[in-house]
Amino acid sequence: MARKYKKISASILVIGNEILSGRTKDQNVSYLASWLNTNLGIKVHEVRIIPDEEKKIIKNLLNLSKNYNYVFTTGGIGPTHDDITAKSISRAFKKKYMYNKEAYEILSKYYGKKEFNDSRKKMAKMPEGSKLIYNPSSAAPGFMIKNVICLPGVPLILQSMLHNLKKYLKKGSKIFSLSISTQTVESKIANNLEKIQNKYKKVVDIGSYPFFRLGKIGVSVVLRSEKKTKLQSCHKEIIKMLTKKKLRILKGI
Amino acid sequence: MARKYKKISASILVIGNEILSGRTKDQNVSYLASWLNTNLGIKVHEVRIIPDEEKKIIKNLLNLSKNYNYVFTTGGIGPTHDDITAKSISRAFKKKYMYNKEAYEILSKYYGKKEFNDSRKKMAKMPEGSKLIYNPSSAAPGFMIKNVICLPGVPLILQSMLHNLKKYLKKGSKIFSLSISTQTVESKIANNLEKIQNKYKKVVDIGSYPFFRLGKIGVSVVLRSEKKTKLQSCHKEIIKMLTKKKLRILKGI
Repeated sequence: MARKYKKISASILVIGNEILSGRTKDQNVSYLASWLNTNLGIKVHEVRIIPDEEKKIIKNLLNLSKNYNYVFTTGGIGPTHDDITAKSISRAFKKKYMYNKEAYEILSKYYGKKEFNDSRKKMAKMPEGSKLIYNPSSAAPGFMIKNVICLPGVPLILQSMLHNLKKYLKKGSKIFSLSISTQTVESKIANNLEKIQNKYKKVVDIGSYPFFRLGKIGVSVVLRSEKKTKLQSCHKEIIKMLTKKKLRILKGI
Repeated sequence: MARKYKKISASILVIGNEILSGRTKDQNVSYLASWLNTNLGIKVHEVRIIPDEEKKIIKNLLNLSKNYNYVFTTGGIGPTHDDITAKSISRAFKKKYMYNKEAYEILSKYYGKKEFNDSRKKMAKMPEGSKLIYNPSSAAPGFMIKNVICLPGVPLILQSMLHNLKKYLKKGSKIFSLSISTQTVESKIANNLEKIQNKYKKVVDIGSYPFFRLGKIGVSVVLRSEKKTKLQSCHKEIIKMLTKKKLRILKGI
């Protein structure tokens, strides 16, 4: 009997003018996508990067929230005027934007009563009914409301919080992957790869990526599938094809 | 008399499963956004990252093409089966997907008649009526059709082609920017920054970004505006505020 594969989909909404201007390079998308895939079998299907503007946050959030199991937002939950993510999410879901008692206590303890000013207090405000995601780096928690998970933009802080987020998320079937690097150019193997892809249609995803590194030109062929045995047999066919073409397979790349 | 500022908007559509799986880190968004800003006064308002799936490419492309002056696509124009960008754009705009005569000649000359196989020929196919963007790195040209500019995914190749793209794009007013880095935490200056932002509403965008580098904790305040004099006076006010608070301004960060 065929095993049933459970698909859990996600999207990432990166909120921040600094990414759109090119000033800051996003580092969260690749980290978060890998982490979700490896640890929870959750697949990211779409990413959007938008400015710190309430209308745009609301519109994109509602759209992604409707279309995917989860939406992960990054950025815009600090203490300054341009941090409007929590307020915008409250408005999107028509929830009260208010102090979360536990977050308020965590932050009050972290800063001490004297240093707990209004800007810092703002970091305890979120949509009513949110669940907290604890922050071992800098105290200010993230939160989850409905299917939206709200994380900070600073990569090291975001990364330190993922462990505390795990318990809120459903697990999907693990997606297995294998890759083969070979010293050739894409156009020499494109036809053969296409034939193999057609044979494994909808079962194995075959991606082909040229690379130039360590002074070598080559192609990485990446296979992804939820079915381990199909993945392995597809992998074997590709190696056989490359060997027949007398192409060198590169190790450790 | 007030000078009129010309706003040219853009969006970037990154097409590639390898970015969504986290396997590959996108390097094109920040490069392209900076380049457009600095060289042409074109501002990127939105980025989307989507998989190599025709339906999704068409839907997102038409949406972005309607909402912004330009859409820049990256990825999916190579010779393999997963390179479906050019075909999808043709379908989106109901244009014939066909050999571009000039592109065909460029590629035929580059590879030599004997080596010019079907996979390589595919790189000369694009929507009817496209304008070519020459590629000094690896011959295969990008193209522009309507307000969509189609570029490759490999960062060094993309970068080498931008010079040849310039002539097709309208110029917007330059956006000026200034930044100040100071040794503090955001929450100590958030209130003051907000007051200054309110004073310069809709004229200067003030962004606040915490950083941790070279063993130092600090905040970078980034100011962006189309109006140079307003930008400079806002910059002065922020420096005055920081000096009054006895905060150290960091140079060269």
